[in-house]
Amino acid sequence: MDITEVEQLMATQRAVRRFRDEPVEDATIERVLAAATRAPSARNIQPWRFVVVRDPETKGRLGEIFDELGQQMYGPNAPDHDHWRDVPVLVVVCAEMVFGRDAGGESALAASVYPAVQNLLLAAHAIGLGTVLTTRWKRREAELRPLLRLPENVSVLAIVPMGWPDRAYGKNRRAPVAGVISRERFGTPWR
Amino acid sequence: MDITEVEQLMATQRAVRRFRDEPVEDATIERVLAAATRAPSARNIQPWRFVVVRDPETKGRLGEIFDELGQQMYGPNAPDHDHWRDVPVLVVVCAEMVFGRDAGGESALAASVYPAVQNLLLAAHAIGLGTVLTTRWKRREAELRPLLRLPENVSVLAIVPMGWPDRAYGKNRRAPVAGVISRERFGTPWR
Repeated sequence: MDITEVEQLMATQRAVRRFRDEPVEDATIERVLAAATRAPSARNIQPWRFVVVRDPETKGRLGEIFDELGQQMYGPNAPDHDHWRDVPVLVVVCAEMVFGRDAGGESALAASVYPAVQNLLLAAHAIGLGTVLTTRWKRREAELRPLLRLPENVSVLAIVPMGWPDRAYGKNRRAPVAGVISRERFGTPWR
Repeated sequence: MDITEVEQLMATQRAVRRFRDEPVEDATIERVLAAATRAPSARNIQPWRFVVVRDPETKGRLGEIFDELGQQMYGPNAPDHDHWRDVPVLVVVCAEMVFGRDAGGESALAASVYPAVQNLLLAAHAIGLGTVLTTRWKRREAELRPLLRLPENVSVLAIVPMGWPDRAYGKNRRAPVAGVISRERFGTPWR
């Protein structure tokens, strides 16, 4: 595949938080999640598990928790996301620890799940779906557990609202790359 | 961009550990790392920092540490990777904690760096470069610190050996996606 097309896909993949009131079909979701599972994981353990949530009650409750966490983290002026009830789909991205197959606990799981999440975001974007990656869940995981019936060996690493974007979005904004590259040792300028 | 091309790119991106004895130009590395920086991060903090290592001494020392960790984790039969000295490039992927801008410590950083690592792997693959994601470094970070002159607020999340693959590689191997999707609650079959 042409690198310039890949660059274009990555440069236009960005957070979309508002969606059209239009469903996302099972087949489309499955296609996006299949792409997610092509990502690497430590020793190919493939610890990712996905819970696809469309139930308005569950989505609404997750939205409330998301907003409460936002207010704790960013203060009373944190943007309100109570519209989660109306988001077409929430994809809850979990990791399952399999006894005897996990080498390094929670931080090793992160390295084996977030690459799959990025595949998910890129594949969704290629199909025309908007997504936003949310990762603040750790502190409220105990409450998510009964809501999503998560067993004890399953943890929540991200929730990704997904739907058809409300409007066209432009490129994402990033700092110039040369400023974040060092040569041989940290701090030695790249060029 | 066409979703089938994206799927093809992701399905053929896989670990490559052996490379031709051929250099990778600065411009190519910079292009791959620029793609990495288009990934999302919490509040767009962009904490990723890259150290590009070509010095044989440094690569050799990192290879030794990698092998020692492998033997600790997987026993004396762990595969030997002492050829790191001869790998064209090692990309050390770090995260920089910026005072007052970090919301959740180490685990939040992982969520804001591994998506960029996946962009790196995919962009490299689109160019024809082979890579392999290694993430076992946490336990030996103290030794990497002087070697790469890392300040205290910088941590190592991954090292990615990169070069032109020694041979053609096929698709990666993954479990069928339907088995890792639940509907509404964990454990409820997707279909």
